Amino acid sequence: MDVAGVIAAKRDGRELDAATLRALVLGFTGGEIPDYQMSAFLMAGYLRGFSAGEASALTQAMVESGERLDLSALRGPTVDKHSTGGVADGTTLIVAPLAAELGMQLLKLSGRGLGHTGGTLDKLESIPGMRTALPVRELLAQVDRIGLAVGAQTAELAPADGALYALRDVTATVANTALIASSVMSKKLAGGASAIVIDVKVGSGAFMKELAAARELAALCVALGRDAGRATAAVLSDMSQPLGTMIGNAVEVREAIEVLRGERRTRLRELSVALAAGLARLAGVAGDAGDGRARAERALDSGAALERFRLFVEAQGGDPRVIDRPGLLPAAPLTREVTAPRHAWLAAVDGEALGMAAARLGAGRQRKGDAVDPATGIEFLPSVGDEVAGGAPVARVFARTEEQARRAAGEILGALSWAGEPVSPPPLIHDRVGGGTGS
Amino acid sequence: MDVAGVIAAKRDGRELDAATLRALVLGFTGGEIPDYQMSAFLMAGYLRGFSAGEASALTQAMVESGERLDLSALRGPTVDKHSTGGVADGTTLIVAPLAAELGMQLLKLSGRGLGHTGGTLDKLESIPGMRTALPVRELLAQVDRIGLAVGAQTAELAPADGALYALRDVTATVANTALIASSVMSKKLAGGASAIVIDVKVGSGAFMKELAAARELAALCVALGRDAGRATAAVLSDMSQPLGTMIGNAVEVREAIEVLRGERRTRLRELSVALAAGLARLAGVAGDAGDGRARAERALDSGAALERFRLFVEAQGGDPRVIDRPGLLPAAPLTREVTAPRHAWLAAVDGEALGMAAARLGAGRQRKGDAVDPATGIEFLPSVGDEVAGGAPVARVFARTEEQARRAAGEILGALSWAGEPVSPPPLIHDRVGGGTGS
Repeated sequence: MDVAGVIAAKRDGRELDAATLRALVLGFTGGEIPDYQMSAFLMAGYLRGFSAGEASALTQAMVESGERLDLSALRGPTVDKHSTGGVADGTTLIVAPLAAELGMQLLKLSGRGLGHTGGTLDKLESIPGMRTALPVRELLAQVDRIGLAVGAQTAELAPADGALYALRDVTATVANTALIASSVMSKKLAGGASAIVIDVKVGSGAFMKELAAARELAALCVALGRDAGRATAAVLSDMSQPLGTMIGNAVEVREAIEVLRGERRTRLRELSVALAAGLARLAGVAGDAGDGRARAERALDSGAALERFRLFVEAQGGDPRVIDRPGLLPAAPLTREVTAPRHAWLAAVDGEALGMAAARLGAGRQRKGDAVDPATGIEFLPSVGDEVAGGAPVARVFARTEEQARRAAGEILGALSWAGEPVSPPPLIHDRVGGGTGS
Repeated sequence: MDVAGVIAAKRDGRELDAATLRALVLGFTGGEIPDYQMSAFLMAGYLRGFSAGEASALTQAMVESGERLDLSALRGPTVDKHSTGGVADGTTLIVAPLAAELGMQLLKLSGRGLGHTGGTLDKLESIPGMRTALPVRELLAQVDRIGLAVGAQTAELAPADGALYALRDVTATVANTALIASSVMSKKLAGGASAIVIDVKVGSGAFMKELAAARELAALCVALGRDAGRATAAVLSDMSQPLGTMIGNAVEVREAIEVLRGERRTRLRELSVALAAGLARLAGVAGDAGDGRARAERALDSGAALERFRLFVEAQGGDPRVIDRPGLLPAAPLTREVTAPRHAWLAAVDGEALGMAAARLGAGRQRKGDAVDPATGIEFLPSVGDEVAGGAPVARVFARTEEQARRAAGEILGALSWAGEPVSPPPLIHDRVGGGTGS
């Protein structure tokens, strides 16, 4: 293979055929194509772009680079969801039991938090005893039994994605729509589910800050899923402020339990219901979006979803008593309140800055492999558009030390913009791509 | 240093400051910055471009990456020349003794041929006994004694250039004006001469096929030389056909000796005189271009340049008898004539194809480290614009085997375009940049 010739073709803006891209990705994963050629190719593609056909070929090659989960032993319908990453985005903790409760089977392989974004595994592992590093056959048996399982992403699934991402991360080639979409979808396709909903976050706390770019990513993810024969849809959801009120690990579990108990009618509940309804419609277990939505609401209000969550925690070794006694979850020694500097309307939130503030409290990690603190975090109270009185609480910081708490308080206030007059709240769901995604 | 941030800045088209580029180049040469980051940077720069200021900083950093020759012990003026590479371009063999004869001192470090282009070292080494791998102090002593020396480029001079070029070669990032110019000029600046003429080849047998691109390269080389305080000029010379009639090694030495003897009034002589006159003017040893030109012509016609060449061959261990008895040079066992297919005017020559035909006869190399055959090659007779009778000789092939000769004959005829009516010959010198370059 003339790798320099392939790089030159992409450099000059030419479209590459599927066989060439497949050979490139598999050659790279197999160690025959060195990283310095792949990084030049990635930069050429970053600047010249990839067509939808090229993105599809890249995705397929990444799937082919490793194992594919075989879900055929499950009675189905099998579903999966993915979020592109945000702040206080605990939807998986709620959508997974809802999906099971609505008659679907969800085997989700999740990742860990990095930078300002949280990770489902970190959150789940804040439950004492909870295990996520489970062999696939155990996860499959659990899904067969109770309808859901959440495990750790393994290196065997789409290893090309992991290798390419590591290279992109250090060569300024992450933020390319085709590369992001093929990375996301290769893992979902290798995960084997027949219906997939992608939650594309957009706004200050997301990787995609602009709606147009997020829409492009959503459309491409849906196209890639369908190219591979999967029922796929995407939701463009708002991340211009934290989705839930809690940012952290145990604190997010606690909030999820409150939503599952039907106690909180919040954005986190609303988006979780929309995602579950979207899966239900794609998977054919709900007649229409309204039906799926109504059934998801009932599952929350009746306590059925919470009981499903209890089964899930028990099945993965977690202490199910945390569900009724949240005091059993790890808690930070200090709680400090942050108050509004003056009477005003909350105009905007720098979600990434809030996420980083929580990460610096220990709730997140600066680099892969760092440990996270299960107990620390932030409770962020107002929503954009809220009128807040001077001196009223806007946040609570859960910290290990006074110094951490003080710094976090300053960072939280620095992340807020205020207006002297009423501000319209942003919509929760900006758009849907691929139909069937709820409401 | 945040290397990914530097790559991102170039990716987004931002201009980088000299300190950043210096840290990047020296970090790469020192092994702290991995090749996969450098190749992404090079591709970003290839597509986004480098300003003249950035090219200057890259050049200076490449110079700083290694040793610099100290020519201060020479009485001077010290001069150097460089050709961007062509076919039948034996000018160094003529310009070097001319420069010495005109009162300049030339220590030239040359490279070897690659692909369709010949290399001065390969040509010189076809002279029995001739050595080019000489220590710098010997070369300096020789220049002090006889005014000229030609040695092999060493890894100690601008090592960053060698490392970057090797990476560019396999990542499709060679053909960028700023990267080419900084590569060329870093070696010349490290070589220490105070006056430099760059011969930028343009046409079918050159790397630059288009005049506009060649002009841009020439202007940038001149700017980089002047930024570094050297008197610098460039000539844009025609490579739409071979410069000399001989393509190979011993055969090119033979042709150079004929020019040095004043026997041949050819393009090779004309360009050599122009380059020598350009150096003379830059170095201040000729009052104006016409004066330098006239003195160079006289040095050829009087035999003085030939005597200087004899001293040079002797000084580097070569057998000086080859000058009067060219039969002592290696000669191929077979000579085959190639004849014109019909009466026509020679309209165009694919110089690269002729160069490759000679290389396949053994006179060149496909990859670095290959050996070359000193004896084989091609004599190419007509010039573009010549009227050629059907059956008249257009070339002679000097080969080892009949099969090689037959293949070369086919390749030579395939490289020619014919017209049914008169064609204007191309100019030998398309343009000059930086003044003082002869004529």
